[in-house]
Amino acid sequence: MVNETQHPCSASSSSRSDGSSSGSESSKDSSRCSTPVLDADRHERLREKMRRRQEAGDRWFSLEFFPPRTANAAVNLISRFDRMGAGGPLFIDVTWHPAGDPGSDKETSSMIIANTAVNYCGLETILHMTCCNQTKDDITGHLQKAKRLGLKNIMALRGDPAGEEWEEEVDGFNHAVDLVKHIRNEFDDYFDICVAGYPKGHPEAESYEADLRHLKEKVFAGADFIITQLFFQPETFLKFMKDCQAIGITCPIIPGIFPIQGYHSLRQLVKLSKLEVPQEIKDVIEPIKDNDAAIRNYGVELALSMCRELLDSGMVHGLHFYTLNREVATTEVLKRLGLWKEDPRRPLPWAVSAHPKRRVEDVRPIFWASRPKSYIYRTQEWDDFPNGRWGNSSSPAFGELKDYYLFYLKSKSPREELLKMWGEELTGEESVFEVFTCYITGEPNKNGYKVTCMPWNDDPLATETNLLKDQLEKVNRRGILTINSQPNINGKPSTDPIVGWGPSGGYVFQKAYLEFFASSEIVTALLKVLKKYELRVNYHIVNVKGQNITNAPDLQPNAVTWGIFPGREIIQPTVVDPVSFLYWKDEAFALWIEQWAKLYEEESPSRMIIQYIHDNYYLVNLVDNDFPLENCLWQVVDDTFELLN
Amino acid sequence: MVNETQHPCSASSSSRSDGSSSGSESSKDSSRCSTPVLDADRHERLREKMRRRQEAGDRWFSLEFFPPRTANAAVNLISRFDRMGAGGPLFIDVTWHPAGDPGSDKETSSMIIANTAVNYCGLETILHMTCCNQTKDDITGHLQKAKRLGLKNIMALRGDPAGEEWEEEVDGFNHAVDLVKHIRNEFDDYFDICVAGYPKGHPEAESYEADLRHLKEKVFAGADFIITQLFFQPETFLKFMKDCQAIGITCPIIPGIFPIQGYHSLRQLVKLSKLEVPQEIKDVIEPIKDNDAAIRNYGVELALSMCRELLDSGMVHGLHFYTLNREVATTEVLKRLGLWKEDPRRPLPWAVSAHPKRRVEDVRPIFWASRPKSYIYRTQEWDDFPNGRWGNSSSPAFGELKDYYLFYLKSKSPREELLKMWGEELTGEESVFEVFTCYITGEPNKNGYKVTCMPWNDDPLATETNLLKDQLEKVNRRGILTINSQPNINGKPSTDPIVGWGPSGGYVFQKAYLEFFASSEIVTALLKVLKKYELRVNYHIVNVKGQNITNAPDLQPNAVTWGIFPGREIIQPTVVDPVSFLYWKDEAFALWIEQWAKLYEEESPSRMIIQYIHDNYYLVNLVDNDFPLENCLWQVVDDTFELLN
Repeated sequence: MVNETQHPCSASSSSRSDGSSSGSESSKDSSRCSTPVLDADRHERLREKMRRRQEAGDRWFSLEFFPPRTANAAVNLISRFDRMGAGGPLFIDVTWHPAGDPGSDKETSSMIIANTAVNYCGLETILHMTCCNQTKDDITGHLQKAKRLGLKNIMALRGDPAGEEWEEEVDGFNHAVDLVKHIRNEFDDYFDICVAGYPKGHPEAESYEADLRHLKEKVFAGADFIITQLFFQPETFLKFMKDCQAIGITCPIIPGIFPIQGYHSLRQLVKLSKLEVPQEIKDVIEPIKDNDAAIRNYGVELALSMCRELLDSGMVHGLHFYTLNREVATTEVLKRLGLWKEDPRRPLPWAVSAHPKRRVEDVRPIFWASRPKSYIYRTQEWDDFPNGRWGNSSSPAFGELKDYYLFYLKSKSPREELLKMWGEELTGEESVFEVFTCYITGEPNKNGYKVTCMPWNDDPLATETNLLKDQLEKVNRRGILTINSQPNINGKPSTDPIVGWGPSGGYVFQKAYLEFFASSEIVTALLKVLKKYELRVNYHIVNVKGQNITNAPDLQPNAVTWGIFPGREIIQPTVVDPVSFLYWKDEAFALWIEQWAKLYEEESPSRMIIQYIHDNYYLVNLVDNDFPLENCLWQVVDDTFELLN
Repeated sequence: MVNETQHPCSASSSSRSDGSSSGSESSKDSSRCSTPVLDADRHERLREKMRRRQEAGDRWFSLEFFPPRTANAAVNLISRFDRMGAGGPLFIDVTWHPAGDPGSDKETSSMIIANTAVNYCGLETILHMTCCNQTKDDITGHLQKAKRLGLKNIMALRGDPAGEEWEEEVDGFNHAVDLVKHIRNEFDDYFDICVAGYPKGHPEAESYEADLRHLKEKVFAGADFIITQLFFQPETFLKFMKDCQAIGITCPIIPGIFPIQGYHSLRQLVKLSKLEVPQEIKDVIEPIKDNDAAIRNYGVELALSMCRELLDSGMVHGLHFYTLNREVATTEVLKRLGLWKEDPRRPLPWAVSAHPKRRVEDVRPIFWASRPKSYIYRTQEWDDFPNGRWGNSSSPAFGELKDYYLFYLKSKSPREELLKMWGEELTGEESVFEVFTCYITGEPNKNGYKVTCMPWNDDPLATETNLLKDQLEKVNRRGILTINSQPNINGKPSTDPIVGWGPSGGYVFQKAYLEFFASSEIVTALLKVLKKYELRVNYHIVNVKGQNITNAPDLQPNAVTWGIFPGREIIQPTVVDPVSFLYWKDEAFALWIEQWAKLYEEESPSRMIIQYIHDNYYLVNLVDNDFPLENCLWQVVDDTFELLN
């Protein structure tokens, strides 16, 4: 009986084994993470992501933008970040605009645009930085600021010297390599550094070979990867890549792709980059130079065939697109290449921020569900972000509203448009009910305009909320003015296209939630009705003065969204937190005035109606704790209306 | 339209309102707890619990025990704590036994018995302490030790002076009041202090009135409540209580109830307490003094009618029982009074410890499910206990096994009994399979003995495990030697009598779990089978040398039991933690040798068989992550056996 049998360990050494030989050793060696790793992406630096994608044989793309000139253009660009971010770029980059005060706090500066991309849009972002004509202190200052804002990647460039008569300065920043060295000296390994490669050689270089040697210097000084200048023929890049490898450059080299989008932009770019457009391209473009659509179509086909050739070579894993801040051409190329991956699956039910401080964040109050940028802004000073439990958060202090009306938190729509949607002239509370109802139904208002946004929600109704549309319409018509809601979910697969989130193989759950403004008359009836439901329904009811009625035990948060995944602890990304609700209350009430009432003249009846609602209505949230049963919140509302009749 | 309507706040001011007038104020004032309060009891001190129960009109009971003389008696007493603890006493108390080295580390000392009650049995405990003939330093030392062990309540007594010729010492501890003052001086408000009251006056007091004054002194010196000496007639207590109130004693006064359990114990007690037994009781007892059962029946009836009269008076909310370390009489009285509340509902799926340090603890690894005392012992040095998430735990270092074979962690059964259960002589691995199978089925082994415990489980099979009995029997017969398991649960009410836990109105969930020892032959086949299940089944497989095979991502714990409750964050009280598993492995393998192999002579075939298993088998745990589907672990095992055939 006591036989030696085959040793299972050796039989299956290919399976994942930590190889530790004893419990205590294993424990001492391990650095235990304080949060379940839901999404490796959030924990890796860009160069690691790149390596992992390459090793997995994955193909990827990235997008380049330049900072806008006006605040309005910035608002549009940020919307574009959100839309193009949905396609799954590995990163985006923002160019450095020396003429535009690029390191300043202006809403249009390179620094602030990159900050928005990282923090508010959750995009891995590279900030360009040029060094010529700048002092060491200026540059260190920019880098420190970038680090503080959560930027982790720098594209180190020389930049174009100001004036014709530029001379190299002794000990100054004369070349990009000086900037690379400076970053590594001052910031060690904190930043991932990208440098530029010139497939045809830099126009100012003595020779193609000399330029390759400069590139090698930059890499050896500490650059992590290379993005190339645009080029017009795939063989240009492939030759360049082989030449780089031949002299010992082993880091990733990413081709820069420029889909031709118009005659003038091409001429402009060619002038700036001192590149020559091949004759065969000129031959096509010249005859159609006044037909924008035709040029764009040609540009898309040209880019497409070049990208295919690059990818088919097996040497290229990622493509970098010079978007010129436009969407159509790049998106089309990406979609036709099959690289555009609009993955409806989310790591968490809300959009995560890419700031390294927020890496572990996995719980937020539900109140800001439609205003995530506001939430990120108001919590940017926190040192720790809740993970695992909201209850663990030791810093529930939200940023003041005074800083809040930053341009990127404002409505995207101009005043005229808002007036068309929300009413040129209000005749009573019922006109307000009407606006809410139109927003829910998607039907035009009585003047024929669709209501596509509300002060509490800058976007049309979420797909998930659509599940509740009929009920929402009914209650808004009668003055229960809903601003946030979610249906109950009793264990749907984490891959569910509407309510799913997190890794596959899991299950997601929700408690039904409803948040609305209502008159004190409705609230009085509601409170009578709620008695009957006891602890099944938790409620928080507060007016603008902060008078607060609740049946929540102590100040405990209520988890209303959670997920169970293979081999992990439980994730509960949204909670109804009583303390945060009182901060949200200030914001929710302020939006009535700041976004809506102020559309009208002072003392005008319309303004007074909104002011009255602001002063007298209550903000209510309801949670149905009994998630496996049918959502009872509609019954609560029906009972309330019945009591009022 | 703009009318003043009734103000909902004033309309419902009786509902729970935090009354805060603004968000920020409310947040600053609140001390946010780091863990959801599942059970108010765990966060209150004894005097608060007493007050809350009294205010709620709840009636309660408490139990007094004395320290045992022998280690065997201590093992029995601890089992009694568990059994009587199930009836729901508000607290137990342990008397101070000056002759028995009461403050020492001996397994039978008052200190260590009280420590066991608090830490291992989770009982709110009062430790008696006497002060006469002791130095200040001795007493302070005892109190410091009590505090360190997690004891929070002291019954301050004078004690009986040693020798006949006792004289009061100047500045010494001459009366209980000196001890009360000393505790308050040295430990401020840390301890809840109880003092003794004498319904007939202390036998040494000058008068009944003088004794009342002494009692008042003790209360005014800082005592929180009073427990009385036993008495034989309810009117004795009720008069005493009125007299106490008349002189200004307002703290709770708890009557001490002594169910007469035998002629000799009554005589002994009466002699010690210098009480007089009323003639009508003597008249009943004397004629039946040799009939123990008759005396006990009479004692139960007498106690019962006295308790009823006390409770009916409306002046008494709690009853304190002098158990004399016996169960039957007290339990019967409590059951007939309706005070014995064997609540199958548990605050968490495992027995919580009452040590204040462990108040927030709400996550444990599943491995110690059947050995909670061992888990508590091995983690007693931790400064923080995991709450919310195991992943947050920064101190995963488990206490060494060297201290582990403390008497109260040993099997309750003597060697002879274990040999009868586990086999006087083993003939091969199959004899071991047979023992495991008999433990599961409850059928007698081939020698006619039932196997009621195993080295890994000192108690018969848990009700929950019974749900899996048929499958467990089948696999143990074939050498998959199960030591821990749980079925999958997809949202049963938290009040479910078998798998429920936590407050009512919630839902509990489990992932199916199976843990067993198996030969390397079985493990080799199992690993092949597991490939097919991919991430659905997480496994950890380890042998005594620590060779470890797993498919768990990183070192992340897997939550296998969790609950969703109204108005709370999610609770996940048991996890499969890869790091802890390697500590548990040491313990689980050691039990083969320490508890089983050592029953046999060295070099004997029986011992060698166990030693072989210890050296060559693997410890395996499996989790089926897909909790809403039918448990696939039995299929995994069946597939494994099929592959082996």
